[in-house]
Amino acid sequence: MTRPSKLSDETVAERLATLPGWTHHDGKLVREFRFKDFSAAFAFMTRAAMRAEQLDHHPDWFNVYNRVKVQLSTHDAAGVTDFDFLLAESMNSFAAADGPQ
Amino acid sequence: MTRPSKLSDETVAERLATLPGWTHHDGKLVREFRFKDFSAAFAFMTRAAMRAEQLDHHPDWFNVYNRVKVQLSTHDAAGVTDFDFLLAESMNSFAAADGPQ
Amino acid sequence: MTRPSKLSDETVAERLATLPGWTHHDGKLVREFRFKDFSAAFAFMTRAAMRAEQLDHHPDWFNVYNRVKVQLSTHDAAGVTDFDFLLAESMNSFAAADGPQ
Amino acid sequence: MTRPSKLSDETVAERLATLPGWTHHDGKLVREFRFKDFSAAFAFMTRAAMRAEQLDHHPDWFNVYNRVKVQLSTHDAAGVTDFDFLLAESMNSFAAADGPQ
Repeated sequence: MTRPSKLSDETVAERLATLPGWTHHDGKLVREFRFKDFSAAFAFMTRAAMRAEQLDHHPDWFNVYNRVKVQLSTHDAAGVTDFDFLLAESMNSFAAADGPQ
Repeated sequence: MTRPSKLSDETVAERLATLPGWTHHDGKLVREFRFKDFSAAFAFMTRAAMRAEQLDHHPDWFNVYNRVKVQLSTHDAAGVTDFDFLLAESMNSFAAADGPQ
Repeated sequence: MTRPSKLSDETVAERLATLPGWTHHDGKLVREFRFKDFSAAFAFMTRAAMRAEQLDHHPDWFNVYNRVKVQLSTHDAAGVTDFDFLLAESMNSFAAADGPQ
Repeated sequence: MTRPSKLSDETVAERLATLPGWTHHDGKLVREFRFKDFSAAFAFMTRAAMRAEQLDHHPDWFNVYNRVKVQLSTHDAAGVTDFDFLLAESMNSFAAADGPQ
């Protein structure tokens, strides 16, 4: 897969309209997930980690107990690309399965 | 926590009545879980692994793609004990959250 | 990536010569790994799980405490393919890092 | 286990002398781990997650690719306690096994 190029702010805004929970901030896609407890949060992180390896595209993320704060951007493109949306969509799907609050 | 003692076949049968999906076979509690895909199956295994470490009581388990076959028994007691029920109950709760089929 | 085709027994034998610990048995690559404890074993499984998702090629594996018994084959090809060797090589590399006994 | 009480700055300093890599900063134990790649970093996190569940004591941690930045403190005690040292010692042991750079 060739590395995708940076998406314009307009395109990012358009695509965020169908991606619940995420915002565009400081050149990154940002979302905070909340789960029932640490166990559910880390199960989510494990699924996201497998997806990240699959895409060879990795999140910046912070976890404390049941919360996972994620920031996605594509370093090589200095902004948000298709890769970030692919990972964000997968994360939303995993979080739905793992039962975020 | 002191190691619990082996439960009688009658007690195991009684307690299985409220533990969906598990059977008592050959001195072990046995269940096969099915998930949507490998990612969901391994997220379940990760939660079960954390719980196993917490209990210091570990499963015999076999995974292929979306299936996880589990056997629980307590070696020291040569049979099924409270520990096996604790782990089995947690696994059912994780599987419900992770959406088995 | 197109799915690779089944390797001949001769090719499998040749390639196993440089893959410590694995044998060819019943149309599968087989190895049992032993680790210090459950924690090390499951860390290995987590790395292998990420690699499996990356390759879209998954192991049959059985774990009890510090042991992980793995069987690799390619269902579509009814035998051993390049995919099995890719996963086996990664597993050896992960096991070396995680300190098998 | 009863919750331990806050350790004095002197005690923290003394114990840090035998805990390579960690510093005491702003009422927390802090360390940044670096691994070979994301796979090794996440394997470390998985082991640490199992240990955290075992202790019922969880880290604040941030991961980007091969780096894991950890902050440990005990909320109830408003400072550093024995629990933080237990988790920090385990993390050092896991990182040694998983081969940090």
